[in-house]
Amino acid sequence: MGMADIAEALWTRHLRHNPADPTWANRDRFVLSNGHGSMLIYALLHLTGYDLPIEELKNFRQLHSRTPGHPEVGITAGVETTTGPLGQGLANSVGMALAEALLAQEFNRENHAIVDHHTYAFVGDGCLMEGISHEACSLAGTLRLSKLIVFYDDNGISIDGRVENWFGDDTPKRFESYGWNVLRGVDGHDSAAVDAAIVKAKQFSAQGAGPTLICCRTVIGKGAPHAAGTEKVHGAPLGADEIQAARTALSWPYEPFDIPAEIYALWDGREKGRQLQSEWQTRYDAYAQAFPAEAAELRRRLASVLPADFAEQAQKFIEATNQKAETMASRKASQLAITAFAELLPEFLGGSADLTGSNFTDWKGVAPVRAGELHLRFGRHINYGVREFGMAAIMNGIALHGGYLPFGGTFLTFSDYSRNALRMAALMKQRVVHVFTHDSIGLGEDGPTHQSVEHAASLRLIPNLHVWRPCDTTETAVAWAYAIQRPASVGMDVKDGGPSALLLSRQNLPFVPRDAQAIAAIGRGGYVLRDAAGAQAIIIATGSEVALALGAQEQLAAKGIAVRVVSMPCTNVFDAQDAQWRESVLPKGLPRVAVEAGVTSGWYKYVGLDGAVVGIDTYGESAPAGVLFKFFGLTAERVAAAVEQVL
Amino acid sequence: MGMADIAEALWTRHLRHNPADPTWANRDRFVLSNGHGSMLIYALLHLTGYDLPIEELKNFRQLHSRTPGHPEVGITAGVETTTGPLGQGLANSVGMALAEALLAQEFNRENHAIVDHHTYAFVGDGCLMEGISHEACSLAGTLRLSKLIVFYDDNGISIDGRVENWFGDDTPKRFESYGWNVLRGVDGHDSAAVDAAIVKAKQFSAQGAGPTLICCRTVIGKGAPHAAGTEKVHGAPLGADEIQAARTALSWPYEPFDIPAEIYALWDGREKGRQLQSEWQTRYDAYAQAFPAEAAELRRRLASVLPADFAEQAQKFIEATNQKAETMASRKASQLAITAFAELLPEFLGGSADLTGSNFTDWKGVAPVRAGELHLRFGRHINYGVREFGMAAIMNGIALHGGYLPFGGTFLTFSDYSRNALRMAALMKQRVVHVFTHDSIGLGEDGPTHQSVEHAASLRLIPNLHVWRPCDTTETAVAWAYAIQRPASVGMDVKDGGPSALLLSRQNLPFVPRDAQAIAAIGRGGYVLRDAAGAQAIIIATGSEVALALGAQEQLAAKGIAVRVVSMPCTNVFDAQDAQWRESVLPKGLPRVAVEAGVTSGWYKYVGLDGAVVGIDTYGESAPAGVLFKFFGLTAERVAAAVEQVL
Repeated sequence: MGMADIAEALWTRHLRHNPADPTWANRDRFVLSNGHGSMLIYALLHLTGYDLPIEELKNFRQLHSRTPGHPEVGITAGVETTTGPLGQGLANSVGMALAEALLAQEFNRENHAIVDHHTYAFVGDGCLMEGISHEACSLAGTLRLSKLIVFYDDNGISIDGRVENWFGDDTPKRFESYGWNVLRGVDGHDSAAVDAAIVKAKQFSAQGAGPTLICCRTVIGKGAPHAAGTEKVHGAPLGADEIQAARTALSWPYEPFDIPAEIYALWDGREKGRQLQSEWQTRYDAYAQAFPAEAAELRRRLASVLPADFAEQAQKFIEATNQKAETMASRKASQLAITAFAELLPEFLGGSADLTGSNFTDWKGVAPVRAGELHLRFGRHINYGVREFGMAAIMNGIALHGGYLPFGGTFLTFSDYSRNALRMAALMKQRVVHVFTHDSIGLGEDGPTHQSVEHAASLRLIPNLHVWRPCDTTETAVAWAYAIQRPASVGMDVKDGGPSALLLSRQNLPFVPRDAQAIAAIGRGGYVLRDAAGAQAIIIATGSEVALALGAQEQLAAKGIAVRVVSMPCTNVFDAQDAQWRESVLPKGLPRVAVEAGVTSGWYKYVGLDGAVVGIDTYGESAPAGVLFKFFGLTAERVAAAVEQVL
Repeated sequence: MGMADIAEALWTRHLRHNPADPTWANRDRFVLSNGHGSMLIYALLHLTGYDLPIEELKNFRQLHSRTPGHPEVGITAGVETTTGPLGQGLANSVGMALAEALLAQEFNRENHAIVDHHTYAFVGDGCLMEGISHEACSLAGTLRLSKLIVFYDDNGISIDGRVENWFGDDTPKRFESYGWNVLRGVDGHDSAAVDAAIVKAKQFSAQGAGPTLICCRTVIGKGAPHAAGTEKVHGAPLGADEIQAARTALSWPYEPFDIPAEIYALWDGREKGRQLQSEWQTRYDAYAQAFPAEAAELRRRLASVLPADFAEQAQKFIEATNQKAETMASRKASQLAITAFAELLPEFLGGSADLTGSNFTDWKGVAPVRAGELHLRFGRHINYGVREFGMAAIMNGIALHGGYLPFGGTFLTFSDYSRNALRMAALMKQRVVHVFTHDSIGLGEDGPTHQSVEHAASLRLIPNLHVWRPCDTTETAVAWAYAIQRPASVGMDVKDGGPSALLLSRQNLPFVPRDAQAIAAIGRGGYVLRDAAGAQAIIIATGSEVALALGAQEQLAAKGIAVRVVSMPCTNVFDAQDAQWRESVLPKGLPRVAVEAGVTSGWYKYVGLDGAVVGIDTYGESAPAGVLFKFFGLTAERVAAAVEQVL
């Protein structure tokens, strides 16, 4: 209710969208970052003519309605991103604006501005208190993302009451410190004032003057005579009496959900939307005439379709990797894969949270994304700065916008910082790839704060996130190819895809020879890496511990004990295989030992009550990696002993 | 090397500490938030006379040395907090300054300023890019924590290179927007200039003018003739040639680790420290004379000792809770426990990340902490604002400071935001309590962004974090009592304690009757809640699903199938019990079914390959809670069917 007047000014006078085609590529993006106000966007979508009938509004927050408690992309046409966890919608909108600016630089040609839209976001005090708002807005300012326009709903109220007691920021000044344009003190209930502010903000856009924050003074729950201006209306229903009082105060005589035709007529955006999209289509057709190759490529990119020969080329790279048989750190193997795939995929857009030289997310000759005078300077690698959560949520925004396949790196231990944005990517089925290097104790001297003993296990718990922990160059190449080939959504048309996380070593990992069948099996998530005739037991391992498993296999063989070694680079993908595959890899009845340099509890799913897990259930230590593996008992000898024990 | 001159000015002229007694209660606190510069603090501690011999410095980053790669509290005398994950040290320092200000308000009397020290922090660009710096510093400004003085090492370099390309903030302006005093453009290599800035900052402290940021222009790796001012010196060693060149440039003729006696003499802080502490002791003795009860209470509080009768009183509360036999939400049961224990524990210091009325972290009559004119206004509940990560790291700082037992609330799903600070509490063995309400799908309509299906399982993976998911009022009371009675460290004297997380329901949970033996068993983490003679199987459940387990037990009993129900409120505590207890609860050979409204994989540790887990391995949905439990098959019927299947 508090933002309704702002929404009216934006949606009826400025927002360039087509309710009849919510996937129109050049639509303005609108993000309701304060997602608990979901009914506002549902009302806007309904009134402007999206496919959201009044019955759905009546069905608010009911099972399988198109009006869930918080807006969800893929459920409701016109919802660009799922919001609710505060601050992330704002960061998504930074990603959308960044994707737009990059795509414009890459595809627009003189007199052919075919990628040219704004990104608008609504944010509340909650979003601006969250740390991620600092990360995302600082970067947006530094990169001068001029087509980003954010409305701050400055109502002075959060759930606990009047925010001044815990949020004393001079927010306009704060955003000026980020290099934003700030329009202060706009009356959020004066439609003309809001309109004028938007006009001004669009001028800043045209001048390349950086993003704009429009600070709107509003009254929360405006229209509710007794509850307005208090925290009572933040998340709770008004109640029957207050609803009646509001109706009286607003002179609104209609029944609930009964909207007069003249109101519909005033709001209906379909005809204008049709015109806007049609004008754009004409421009696009002219572009396609003048630049047919670029137009085809843009079409492919926006449809999130990989190049026709990608699968074949990826297979060739995997085979070549296998033939080279190199011993190297998996973070380095990842860089080789990135380098190869960047050549094949112009949509590949890398980055790192200030650890480029450690994560190896860049490749030879790649240009960094930089601020420019009027426009962003195009590049394919983003220095996200020390902003792990911001990076992850911006990547989600880039993926939601379309046109790029974003990936970004940090140390695995800092997946804790970005965790909820990984979850959001998985929930929204977005194809993004997280490069998490320096896994586990193998990073050595940096010590327990940096040693991610529980992170592999805890990332595996996030539904729909694929977590790969490859053991050598070949598995790393396959993991990358698999992550890239997960289905990608097309804007709001969400397919059954999702994000991937690659957990990579700082230290060298020995190459493991494999035949073609074993290479093909990597993509199953878990497979027999080295079998033994008459195997009496199975050792399951991932990443750097696969070498220990193979060592234990040899030691046991010397004692006449035959064991099978299973490599399980991705438990999530393995679990999704049919029962026959799973049984073929882990046949019933054979005792099992799992080994991973991390917490043990997740592995009992595979080894059972009678199996054993060799791992680390405490924090690490600061010491050279070799010393630590011995200290924590992660040795082939101990794995072999564990096998003898379970036998 | 870049901050050495700043450190010299602070440590030799201002820092009030006593190297011979690093646990002196009224010492100034010093936090190196940019913990990758750990050698700086080791050098300072060594030179000023702490128990850190030169041999330990030679042993840098070696196993079990007192000089790990990042500073760790409890390992090295004089290190106040473990740093490395950027931004968190800064937030810890806000917590320390907050604890000092509260303790001063609570215990100081006219002419008896016995709690009266500063908190100093060093931060780099990395800390200031992190979102948590926004959360913590915004709150510090709002609360006007005047005794907090932060040095910004403005060297313009982070790991990726010159920060201007990804961090364009006007940082002084940003901090002014938070209400901080900002001293701009101090030459960080001019000892007199730094000294003058500290004098000025202390004047601001005395005036109650809010926290101060001293912006020091520095050259990273100052003294290294070729590498200084570049990212090459950020984390990597200089190399032999550059070290030699630096020695030449600095005219430093001594062997490595050979420090001339006159240098030691200049730095030695022991005599001055002895005097400072002795003067304070005299003041404290006068206070103790005038206010003996307060002095004794302060001594107890600073020693982190619970009141002598706490265990007994807690037991009485648990028994009274059991007798009331109330059906209620566990978040409400938690509030009853908080209310009871707040009466017994003046050190109990609550708070919420803007969800006070949902988390129920407050109690009747509690005053909120508020900014005051000259001093903080005392209270025992902190409105942390929408700052989950900041809250958790500030709580760590409060616990590290001593004098309070902090707890704070948010929704369980947002434990993702604060996760790394929970990890740091567990790593640092700090007694803090997290109240995570609205667990799992039981919150209903807010939908999948707010439904924490994987969070219970993933929190259990953090070593040394106790995760409680109580099933009714009695278990909730026990969980609280257990969390409070974990050992607490005394400042840097870290004991074998740690944090706890309480996972609580939004919805009502039925009361389960128990005898005294069963009540006593709750503290074992897992116990037989309701047995059956000749049990053929075991159902293990937590929280809201215990009722389903009991329902299934009845349904099966009607069919003549006897099953035992085990309640497992805390797997971490259960796992730590001796084998005999674990075997008595979960005897070998009995088939098992686990039920929890969350991801299933962690439960195979208890049910094995032949058991079954009834849970949810996908995201939730927006709908009323009752509808969701049915939709996801979390019913007594399904649990009973699972038991029949495993039999």
